[in-house]
Amino acid sequence: MKLATLKNGTRDGQLIVVRRDGMRYVSGAEVAPTLQAVLDDWDNKAPQLEEVSKRLNSGEIEGTEIDFNELLSPLPRAYEWVDGSAFLNHVRLVRKARNAEPPKTLETDPLVYQGGSGVFLAPRDDIPLADEKWGCDFEAEICVYLGDTPQGVKEAEAEKHIRLFTICNDVSLRGLIPPELAKGFGFFTSKPATAFAPFAVTPDELGDAWKDGRLHLYMRSTYNGELVGKVHAGPEMHFSFPRLIEHVCQTRSMTAGTILGSGTISNEDRSAGISCLAERRMIEIIDEGAAKTPFMKPGDTIQIEMFDEAEENLFGTIQQKVIKK
Amino acid sequence: MKLATLKNGTRDGQLIVVRRDGMRYVSGAEVAPTLQAVLDDWDNKAPQLEEVSKRLNSGEIEGTEIDFNELLSPLPRAYEWVDGSAFLNHVRLVRKARNAEPPKTLETDPLVYQGGSGVFLAPRDDIPLADEKWGCDFEAEICVYLGDTPQGVKEAEAEKHIRLFTICNDVSLRGLIPPELAKGFGFFTSKPATAFAPFAVTPDELGDAWKDGRLHLYMRSTYNGELVGKVHAGPEMHFSFPRLIEHVCQTRSMTAGTILGSGTISNEDRSAGISCLAERRMIEIIDEGAAKTPFMKPGDTIQIEMFDEAEENLFGTIQQKVIKK
Repeated sequence: MKLATLKNGTRDGQLIVVRRDGMRYVSGAEVAPTLQAVLDDWDNKAPQLEEVSKRLNSGEIEGTEIDFNELLSPLPRAYEWVDGSAFLNHVRLVRKARNAEPPKTLETDPLVYQGGSGVFLAPRDDIPLADEKWGCDFEAEICVYLGDTPQGVKEAEAEKHIRLFTICNDVSLRGLIPPELAKGFGFFTSKPATAFAPFAVTPDELGDAWKDGRLHLYMRSTYNGELVGKVHAGPEMHFSFPRLIEHVCQTRSMTAGTILGSGTISNEDRSAGISCLAERRMIEIIDEGAAKTPFMKPGDTIQIEMFDEAEENLFGTIQQKVIKK
Repeated sequence: MKLATLKNGTRDGQLIVVRRDGMRYVSGAEVAPTLQAVLDDWDNKAPQLEEVSKRLNSGEIEGTEIDFNELLSPLPRAYEWVDGSAFLNHVRLVRKARNAEPPKTLETDPLVYQGGSGVFLAPRDDIPLADEKWGCDFEAEICVYLGDTPQGVKEAEAEKHIRLFTICNDVSLRGLIPPELAKGFGFFTSKPATAFAPFAVTPDELGDAWKDGRLHLYMRSTYNGELVGKVHAGPEMHFSFPRLIEHVCQTRSMTAGTILGSGTISNEDRSAGISCLAERRMIEIIDEGAAKTPFMKPGDTIQIEMFDEAEENLFGTIQQKVIKK
């Protein structure tokens, strides 16, 4: 099933169930007020929502047409947003861009950072930017919503804790990253609010594309109207989602509704294009000695989406414009 | 007023209002189900709770005796847990302990990290430790609960967004910190679940001790029954809470219920003692060439509390024991 969250004037919005084609919806209010409430009581609520979903997909319920401007991110705020960096081609390129060495454990120990999760942007929200020198960039990623996941869970047991999938734009401020990481405590001001796609979908909606703990589909990024990336999210994800879950649960458990990201989708094959501007800039430096592509400035637009094997827009489109804050 | 959260079988517990002496309480259910619900609608809910608090403190409501084992942390889970490191003596000592330089901007740019906020320990919960080699340590800190705080807020305007105060034990795994920070993305596995004190109190309960954006009281840490620290939390807090708020809101806004920490309370005067074992170990290295004090192992106990000028236990006591996970 596909779930989403409608604006209703509250902080957490109204849970809705979305038709498979992403065109129409029906309220999920009779089952739960919010997506967090569903994740908090998944075993009880999910089967009830599946029933609603079946009736909507069969045409028994007509539903209401979706207005994408009326959707929040599936969880408008979450208890944790933990973001991996599992595509090593991305790690190598962006570290090169800031003259930093990849960690020695790059291939054996997953990189993750703890992101801010109190305020997420909606899928069509503008990206407020106070200072162009901050070097605003998009990052197209896959993410999973977890159920309760115990400390010490192992990779082989981790997949069953994945409840939902979506994609996100993990906005980054490249200019703030080097001084911030130099302080030693990780990102903070260099990671402003993240935006998520309109729909979160259960694993059964992904068919054969979900295998080996990876989502074998292409991430498409369209920047200022130009398709700049059609990047395969499967084979080059060095650490699978279950492996990332084992890593993040090493010393503590995760609560229902924790969001875990893949990191920027990136392929070694340059013809695949990019899922963030920093990679294009690094390639320009390698090939031409200097970066030509500027970071995002007010007026620039970014569109991120993922189509399934039947060419259906799986999660709906993230469509954002940078504005002067 | 003093607020707390009673275990009731739900994830977020039941809001209660606590008598000033910390001995008796009355349910806050008629005003709001949970502390998060209060923070989400502070201007409306806080005055109603103040009324309940007045009636409880005057004796008009008798209330029920508190059983500290029945309390959760005031917010059992939060949308963000952002922890500063504003006591520079602590930063200098722990960096020395791991042969790392303090950042060049130590005195001008606050250090903060984004902590995990999905699962907090209760004030009397055991600390589960899977491996003694991880180097388990306590860290006694002050924290504030914020209301909605906008991006770009300045220090001079920031204090009004502070809703509540408490203290916490920001448990750290010292053995995991150096390899994790070497990866460049901050702590993650090296920061397991944090425990908070029983009570969260409004600023007016602090009297003159709350001034200059700092809480001028002593943090007492009792380790295995021995008072190891009576450390002043005021003058040596290099960055005030309003300054920390300005810093963390530079590029994004904070939602109601965000918790912001001071970092480990630390004084240059050694006779004040410690608020974490890492400092004692570093002092032993400086004085005697080697650390003698081991990190925490199963069976070790830690008690953290803060008394006001009238010698009242302001937030109640954090009282935890390490157990083998």
